[in-house]
Amino acid sequence: MSAANYELTAEVLTEAIPFMRRFAGKVVVVKYGGNALAGTEGEEEEALRSFAEDVVLMRSVGMLPVVVHGGGPQIGELMQRLGMTPRFVDGLRVTDAETLEVVRMVLVGKVNREVVGAINRHGPLAVGLSGEDAGFITAEARDEALGFVGDVVGVDPTIVRRLLSEGLVPVIATIGADVAGQAYNINADTVAGAIAAALWAQKLVLLTDVSGVRRDRDDPGSVASELSVAEIDELIADGTISEGMIPKVEACAHAVRAGVSSAHILDGRVAHALLVELFTEEGLGTMVVDR
Amino acid sequence: MSAANYELTAEVLTEAIPFMRRFAGKVVVVKYGGNALAGTEGEEEEALRSFAEDVVLMRSVGMLPVVVHGGGPQIGELMQRLGMTPRFVDGLRVTDAETLEVVRMVLVGKVNREVVGAINRHGPLAVGLSGEDAGFITAEARDEALGFVGDVVGVDPTIVRRLLSEGLVPVIATIGADVAGQAYNINADTVAGAIAAALWAQKLVLLTDVSGVRRDRDDPGSVASELSVAEIDELIADGTISEGMIPKVEACAHAVRAGVSSAHILDGRVAHALLVELFTEEGLGTMVVDR
Amino acid sequence: MSAANYELTAEVLTEAIPFMRRFAGKVVVVKYGGNALAGTEGEEEEALRSFAEDVVLMRSVGMLPVVVHGGGPQIGELMQRLGMTPRFVDGLRVTDAETLEVVRMVLVGKVNREVVGAINRHGPLAVGLSGEDAGFITAEARDEALGFVGDVVGVDPTIVRRLLSEGLVPVIATIGADVAGQAYNINADTVAGAIAAALWAQKLVLLTDVSGVRRDRDDPGSVASELSVAEIDELIADGTISEGMIPKVEACAHAVRAGVSSAHILDGRVAHALLVELFTEEGLGTMVVDR
Amino acid sequence: MSAANYELTAEVLTEAIPFMRRFAGKVVVVKYGGNALAGTEGEEEEALRSFAEDVVLMRSVGMLPVVVHGGGPQIGELMQRLGMTPRFVDGLRVTDAETLEVVRMVLVGKVNREVVGAINRHGPLAVGLSGEDAGFITAEARDEALGFVGDVVGVDPTIVRRLLSEGLVPVIATIGADVAGQAYNINADTVAGAIAAALWAQKLVLLTDVSGVRRDRDDPGSVASELSVAEIDELIADGTISEGMIPKVEACAHAVRAGVSSAHILDGRVAHALLVELFTEEGLGTMVVDR
Amino acid sequence: MSAANYELTAEVLTEAIPFMRRFAGKVVVVKYGGNALAGTEGEEEEALRSFAEDVVLMRSVGMLPVVVHGGGPQIGELMQRLGMTPRFVDGLRVTDAETLEVVRMVLVGKVNREVVGAINRHGPLAVGLSGEDAGFITAEARDEALGFVGDVVGVDPTIVRRLLSEGLVPVIATIGADVAGQAYNINADTVAGAIAAALWAQKLVLLTDVSGVRRDRDDPGSVASELSVAEIDELIADGTISEGMIPKVEACAHAVRAGVSSAHILDGRVAHALLVELFTEEGLGTMVVDR
Amino acid sequence: MSAANYELTAEVLTEAIPFMRRFAGKVVVVKYGGNALAGTEGEEEEALRSFAEDVVLMRSVGMLPVVVHGGGPQIGELMQRLGMTPRFVDGLRVTDAETLEVVRMVLVGKVNREVVGAINRHGPLAVGLSGEDAGFITAEARDEALGFVGDVVGVDPTIVRRLLSEGLVPVIATIGADVAGQAYNINADTVAGAIAAALWAQKLVLLTDVSGVRRDRDDPGSVASELSVAEIDELIADGTISEGMIPKVEACAHAVRAGVSSAHILDGRVAHALLVELFTEEGLGTMVVDR
Repeated sequence: MSAANYELTAEVLTEAIPFMRRFAGKVVVVKYGGNALAGTEGEEEEALRSFAEDVVLMRSVGMLPVVVHGGGPQIGELMQRLGMTPRFVDGLRVTDAETLEVVRMVLVGKVNREVVGAINRHGPLAVGLSGEDAGFITAEARDEALGFVGDVVGVDPTIVRRLLSEGLVPVIATIGADVAGQAYNINADTVAGAIAAALWAQKLVLLTDVSGVRRDRDDPGSVASELSVAEIDELIADGTISEGMIPKVEACAHAVRAGVSSAHILDGRVAHALLVELFTEEGLGTMVVDR
Repeated sequence: MSAANYELTAEVLTEAIPFMRRFAGKVVVVKYGGNALAGTEGEEEEALRSFAEDVVLMRSVGMLPVVVHGGGPQIGELMQRLGMTPRFVDGLRVTDAETLEVVRMVLVGKVNREVVGAINRHGPLAVGLSGEDAGFITAEARDEALGFVGDVVGVDPTIVRRLLSEGLVPVIATIGADVAGQAYNINADTVAGAIAAALWAQKLVLLTDVSGVRRDRDDPGSVASELSVAEIDELIADGTISEGMIPKVEACAHAVRAGVSSAHILDGRVAHALLVELFTEEGLGTMVVDR
Repeated sequence: MSAANYELTAEVLTEAIPFMRRFAGKVVVVKYGGNALAGTEGEEEEALRSFAEDVVLMRSVGMLPVVVHGGGPQIGELMQRLGMTPRFVDGLRVTDAETLEVVRMVLVGKVNREVVGAINRHGPLAVGLSGEDAGFITAEARDEALGFVGDVVGVDPTIVRRLLSEGLVPVIATIGADVAGQAYNINADTVAGAIAAALWAQKLVLLTDVSGVRRDRDDPGSVASELSVAEIDELIADGTISEGMIPKVEACAHAVRAGVSSAHILDGRVAHALLVELFTEEGLGTMVVDR
Repeated sequence: MSAANYELTAEVLTEAIPFMRRFAGKVVVVKYGGNALAGTEGEEEEALRSFAEDVVLMRSVGMLPVVVHGGGPQIGELMQRLGMTPRFVDGLRVTDAETLEVVRMVLVGKVNREVVGAINRHGPLAVGLSGEDAGFITAEARDEALGFVGDVVGVDPTIVRRLLSEGLVPVIATIGADVAGQAYNINADTVAGAIAAALWAQKLVLLTDVSGVRRDRDDPGSVASELSVAEIDELIADGTISEGMIPKVEACAHAVRAGVSSAHILDGRVAHALLVELFTEEGLGTMVVDR
Repeated sequence: MSAANYELTAEVLTEAIPFMRRFAGKVVVVKYGGNALAGTEGEEEEALRSFAEDVVLMRSVGMLPVVVHGGGPQIGELMQRLGMTPRFVDGLRVTDAETLEVVRMVLVGKVNREVVGAINRHGPLAVGLSGEDAGFITAEARDEALGFVGDVVGVDPTIVRRLLSEGLVPVIATIGADVAGQAYNINADTVAGAIAAALWAQKLVLLTDVSGVRRDRDDPGSVASELSVAEIDELIADGTISEGMIPKVEACAHAVRAGVSSAHILDGRVAHALLVELFTEEGLGTMVVDR
Repeated sequence: MSAANYELTAEVLTEAIPFMRRFAGKVVVVKYGGNALAGTEGEEEEALRSFAEDVVLMRSVGMLPVVVHGGGPQIGELMQRLGMTPRFVDGLRVTDAETLEVVRMVLVGKVNREVVGAINRHGPLAVGLSGEDAGFITAEARDEALGFVGDVVGVDPTIVRRLLSEGLVPVIATIGADVAGQAYNINADTVAGAIAAALWAQKLVLLTDVSGVRRDRDDPGSVASELSVAEIDELIADGTISEGMIPKVEACAHAVRAGVSSAHILDGRVAHALLVELFTEEGLGTMVVDR
């Protein structure tokens, strides 16, 4: 080993271990998917492979990772193949019974399976779960006009805690059910935030396709390394944060307000971003804290 | 209460309780689906509702039900909607990568969800599972020409035992994976038999659409109330048992040879058939034992 | 199985199982004896046999039965054989030291042994206990003029809980002791009520030789299926409830006021009355509730 | 404290503590009764009081005493009051059904209660038990001509171990039952030996009214301080040991052959004989060992 | 055994056992050393041997002894051999860095080893400990002029409790450390009192070379058998208690004020003084109580 | 973070974590001292500081470090101050009673304290221990002519396991005792090997002042990265390994023959050598394996 490498190695190790110690036995909810998976099929596979490796390494040092995933692009693809036309009300997609069935088949029967499979290539660790299992996520209709688009009403984390205590990695598809057993499709960022809150997680990490939250919409160099929930409210109010970033920052704000120590928005396309975020002082992307 | 009813009630109770005691803490694997669900949509729903109630009542008296399901008709339906043409080799359906994806979406993302949902209307009991989760079912290709049609190579029942020990009801979609993570579609009767064997179950119950195994193919009155594994071999050899009934009786024979006390083939369309089979001396359908 | 029987069987099972579930792990205190045993010797034996079977079946489905018994007629019989003349003060029987010794010998050394023996014919389940064991029931003199007739001052249910937690059935003779170790004879209905209260039992069941509490003393058809503690007070006040029925309804009232869900007065001479009461909606006799 | 007393005190303590340590957690079966209780009523009460104190002190230093008692004189007394005439066959008393009922009432309902009461004056420690409880002692008829006189066929010490593990002191009346539930009267020395053997006790102590076993029948000074089982056989063969002493030495021999470290025959009329035997080098009476 | 000896033996046993019971599982902190060890080398060895035997016997009957020791004379001896001259400020010995190193070597590396060795001759029971181990005793400088003479700031008894719960006997050298890891020498009586307080001990026993605290400095016959903390304050105030006795009575007062039941000052040169103090009504020396 | 640093960080982390996982819960015995401490006083302190940090980091990731230390130079220094002249027999130092006392004072009372102190600056983790505590190391005289120089006869690792299971770090001074309680001084490398063997450690690491074992005595570049026990025997036989290196390689050979996976000889003067050895593929120094 070269002297330079020796020194760097010793440095990384002495810096990383205290983080490992601090996070051992702590729950970290990681939302993976959607745009983090954007790219060619080969890039997607490589991203999923690197992500699965990071999850397994987190588990190795005693952390308790919980994976939440969406699957927008894959849903659109199957609908197209089935000749279904998306309907919109005031710009929002309507989820009728037939659409819901497609959403559920894709999320639970396809994307969830792929994430479970990628992790289980390293050992029998991952177990797929949907919010319908064992009364995990209770949902209700957001707006009748939108059909089976749901809001989270309650999270009973018992089944997740059980799997965690068995050393397993829950991989969660974001379908919920109401008391009558009716299923709903729920935004994956929102679910990730609600689960992090219900589990009193140490961290919530949203892996996406941008390097963080910008303080100036048009300046890629303006990514904030840290934001308070108050700043988030302001940045939404003045329009700096908009569209798809809104549910992300709101999920972060919800989680940290509920006691999660910090929430992070990272670029999931960078290999091992999760690991470097967790185990270095410097970190990556934008961190949201409750100040 | 009328005197007649009083006496009957006392009789049923004094007869049923010793069975409940004997089966308490014992695993019963129930295969549900395919033809047991045949009929109009309303009939299907009613059958699923009554089945789910029986499963919940079994759980109530301390039994440990494990549900295994198939989903042939629903797979065919989605393939048709997607304009996919089934291919056959020597009369057997070929499962290529695209077909496998459809099979998985339907079994894991649709049928499994419906069974889980029907049970969970009674409380947060059921958890969906596929053979890919936590390394549960290892499969291999049966025949390269058939594509991703799998045979069971191994069953690691750890995750099922964990869920049972938490008081939950595992509902299993019959997808397996090989060590490289490749998924396979496997016959549901076969999987039910293998799981019953791996769990050292007390009973295996296959719910189907006939009242049992006939000793004379053409005589509905010839249903055997009990068959030994030796008799099964003979009835297959002389052609009395044929076609779809073969994997069923073979799953039964495999299970009882591996130590399962008895295996049963019942008409799942009769309301509460499962309950009456379990808790009366007389029972229903055909019982397979290892003699 | 005939279609009619099939349907009835399914009905009884689906109705009974939820009760079994609700009562599993719950304590049910059953007072047996005295008049429930009235009749010829053969009838007595048959009643005890059927009662013991019900207790064993209750245990089988996970309930925790506690049996309390009296033994008035048998005490009288031995006193007569010993040529002892009962003395009365204001119409109440006086229990002097010699009488107490006879009472204790009969209750602990004879009746208790018979009930333990009848249960243990089904397996080594029953353990006899008197209130003197391990400081179980503390008593004090009710009235010096009556000698060693006791009132319950305290119940330490530890030893009973220990036996229950070992899967055993405590069978309790109603002798108590004061702090100096002096024994007292206590009314069995009263003791049953006090034990039910101390154990936070689910139910108290008093098996007697009438079909319940009448709202009209002279009308056998006026048996109340449900009474509140307030109604009991009224019925005692206006003389409708009188004599031996008073300690029974007071024991019921005491128990339900202390948190026991319901108390029942049944005709113990009907075979399996206990079982039918516990596991059907309709029930038998009179139920006392705290409203 | 005088210097002499100081030295003696230090000596007794340093000698006794190692015994306490050695016996802590060890079972000691003590047979009490019959002739140990001989004397005036006041002497009897004082003997029982001192015996109970020793049992409580044994318990205090972590030993696990198990008390077994007989009750011959008290049985005779009640039979006489009831005008029953003892019958004999070849010089042995016949126990018919009526006699058995008297025996059981006296042992379980009177003597057992008195021993339990004497111990419980020090705290809620003692629990009465008969061989019928929880299938504890299985017996069979010794000889049909003798009626319900039983031999021990088996001892299931589970219930005794349970009570010991709860810190309680079992006090055992020597009634057994056969599989059909028929009760038998058994010799108390024999039962004590069988229980000591079944519990793998450290010691068996028989408290009686002689100072030990004599090597010369007629010489009170010939009491043996130690006897081997071989010597016992000889002394019985040559008539030195005779009559009531025979079941005692046989119970001792049975116990030590089954692995009990030593068995002791002491004069129970000497105050605190039990304590001095247990906690001094010198001991008292006759010790039987398996050599 | 002579009749007189028999009676005395029975008396000592019946008196001692209740104390053993009361103290079983209770912590007793014993400070040994300094002047208790005064005398010729042979006397010292004999005193240590008898002390070690008492500690082992205490452990035998379930008490939890904790030994604290000083070592003044041995420290002086090594300093002299090293040619070090003790320095004094206002009559108090100054502990500079070099002196501290000598103190630590002697206490931890010599005296502690000797006490551990004497106990372990009876079995592997004793474990040496210094206040620096596992953050046990936090100290701070008493007065800069005195150097590394410390006062107790805090006691974290976790490590001591752990050793006790493993059945071991902690033997403690009275060195403490501040948060920066700097070691300090602390008065052994003071440490013993602080440990007794932190452990909620039953008793604190200081073994010294006088027979107790005198009410009149010059009258050996004026030793008080009992003193309240108020009386102690008075006796210090009026000069009756002076010099080396002051930290002893103050340690006693501190301990009983913190909830220790009683503290004792005994002459440790009398063989088995510890045992006789603990297990007789009469006791020895001076007892301090919080009244 | 620079891209180069980012990549290196990710690399070190993904490489180190699998080692951490493999070693979690595993015991690693580290011998520290003697020549590893050579240098100026400042260098010594810095080396001890870095060593203590590594030990704490090992503990942080779930490893169970056990520290063994010697102290030759410090012993020599005190002997010199006391004017003691070392005696030699056949070139080996003689340890008479006076020398042993000095050895024990230095090892237990000085060096052990310094190592404990250095670790405890990070938290209350370290507990000092000598082989005399709780019967840990049994020794015997190697050769009467050498006095109290001991060989290891037995290691009872119970006390070490207890401390490890409490999350503590045992720091061991290499004094042993024979059954009569006589203490002996033992070679620290030998003790480290014996402890590693007795604990079935994962690794034994000897920190010294050379970079490993040379295959050519005179060529610093000939350090072997791996040696089998057979090669060690050869290198000793042909004189390549000599003097102080012999007990080191023999301790390594003893440990790996007893089942320790690997033993390592490293240069302890390099900062964080322990950490880099443990958590990189490449490692440092010489590894001894049982091939």
